Amino acid sequence: MAYELYYWTGIQGRGEYIRLALEEAGAPYRDVAREQGDGVIEALAEQAQTPSFAPPVLKDGDMVLGQVSAILLYLGEALDLAPQDRRLRLWVHQIQLTIADFVVEGHDAHHPLGAGQYYEDQKPEARRRSTDFRQQRVPKFLTWFETVLTRNPLGSAHLAGDRISYADLSLFQIVAGLDYAFPKLMGRIGGDYPNVRALHDAVAERPNISAYLRSQRRLPGNEDDLFRHYPELDG
Amino acid sequence: MAYELYYWTGIQGRGEYIRLALEEAGAPYRDVAREQGDGVIEALAEQAQTPSFAPPVLKDGDMVLGQVSAILLYLGEALDLAPQDRRLRLWVHQIQLTIADFVVEGHDAHHPLGAGQYYEDQKPEARRRSTDFRQQRVPKFLTWFETVLTRNPLGSAHLAGDRISYADLSLFQIVAGLDYAFPKLMGRIGGDYPNVRALHDAVAERPNISAYLRSQRRLPGNEDDLFRHYPELDG
Repeated sequence: MAYELYYWTGIQGRGEYIRLALEEAGAPYRDVAREQGDGVIEALAEQAQTPSFAPPVLKDGDMVLGQVSAILLYLGEALDLAPQDRRLRLWVHQIQLTIADFVVEGHDAHHPLGAGQYYEDQKPEARRRSTDFRQQRVPKFLTWFETVLTRNPLGSAHLAGDRISYADLSLFQIVAGLDYAFPKLMGRIGGDYPNVRALHDAVAERPNISAYLRSQRRLPGNEDDLFRHYPELDG
Repeated sequence: MAYELYYWTGIQGRGEYIRLALEEAGAPYRDVAREQGDGVIEALAEQAQTPSFAPPVLKDGDMVLGQVSAILLYLGEALDLAPQDRRLRLWVHQIQLTIADFVVEGHDAHHPLGAGQYYEDQKPEARRRSTDFRQQRVPKFLTWFETVLTRNPLGSAHLAGDRISYADLSLFQIVAGLDYAFPKLMGRIGGDYPNVRALHDAVAERPNISAYLRSQRRLPGNEDDLFRHYPELDG
């Protein structure tokens, strides 16, 4: 039976981390809200015994699971996108959780006062927060990913183990997000993290991912998404 | 062999979610930085093959694991603080991840422009963000926890299953954090979430937790911690 993904239409958002795993594995899935509208997301939360605080939500048969990192923990095993070794599996999960933390910071760079207020109502604050994000946080996270790749005893092509994992796919996605939102910054410092860049490029060239990126299913970046290109916040 | 916890001295912080699990289970552990100073945290990250982006870090023999939710996933199994059933185990993990999201928002209520700048340099912004936090986010999260408790088919005394889990302990901790940081807010709305309050109180009375809370190991809340009591942000 096909997996069912429930996520806001119109953006890549957090749903994209799930889509990349499903697409890489060639797993059958339905993007339910894109078929039936965003209303199905709330409807699912209202009826589920395990309601999610926010999308994305994955439905597999009668299992309803939310939170990107929990969904990927589940799919990593089901789709063979995580190492077999239990410790390595936990390590991949730890990396994913750190990616999730970074995604929050990427969003808060343009919405430091909270998602409840428009960007237009917090522009000076976004300037200050994004300066800290560009100067301190992005380099700190990218340095960490580079270190993880460098220290992988099975080779620097993957964050953990010697095969693709969902964490590799997710790292691709945040680099793609940074390239979109902060082209000036990434033009300046992107080359400082050669293993990160090489992983991004290698993921983009994987047959299933490459086909996905060229498909209609891959939405372009936009200014409703988590990573937003506001030139005044780049530099 | 005793578990080794590495976390900043001086605050409860994110280390507390790990401590509560270890204390509830009566597991032997060393709080290494409190014995040897904060320097051991960075030293561990520099030498580990699996360096953590930030503490807390748990060392169990030669395994070095970071990220609160990953550590609790591991300890939940090792210390029998999670359901046996695989789906329920994922559900507990999903709840924990939502608690982790809330902790970030609790911190950002007083540091909306980033941890790199002092509170004193972002007070007006903290006022705006904390207003949104109090009026929108806290009620939304507490409503969700109340719903989860209410919908638990095995009883509303636990978030999942019919026994204590690490997520119950973590929910206790964020309610305690809110009580400390936002006493006015919680005085006004705390009663709206009776199952959440009952769970908090029941956890506090568990023998091992009660003994822990009265011990020197439980630090009092303070204004270096994640939850901070700034009267100007309460209301």
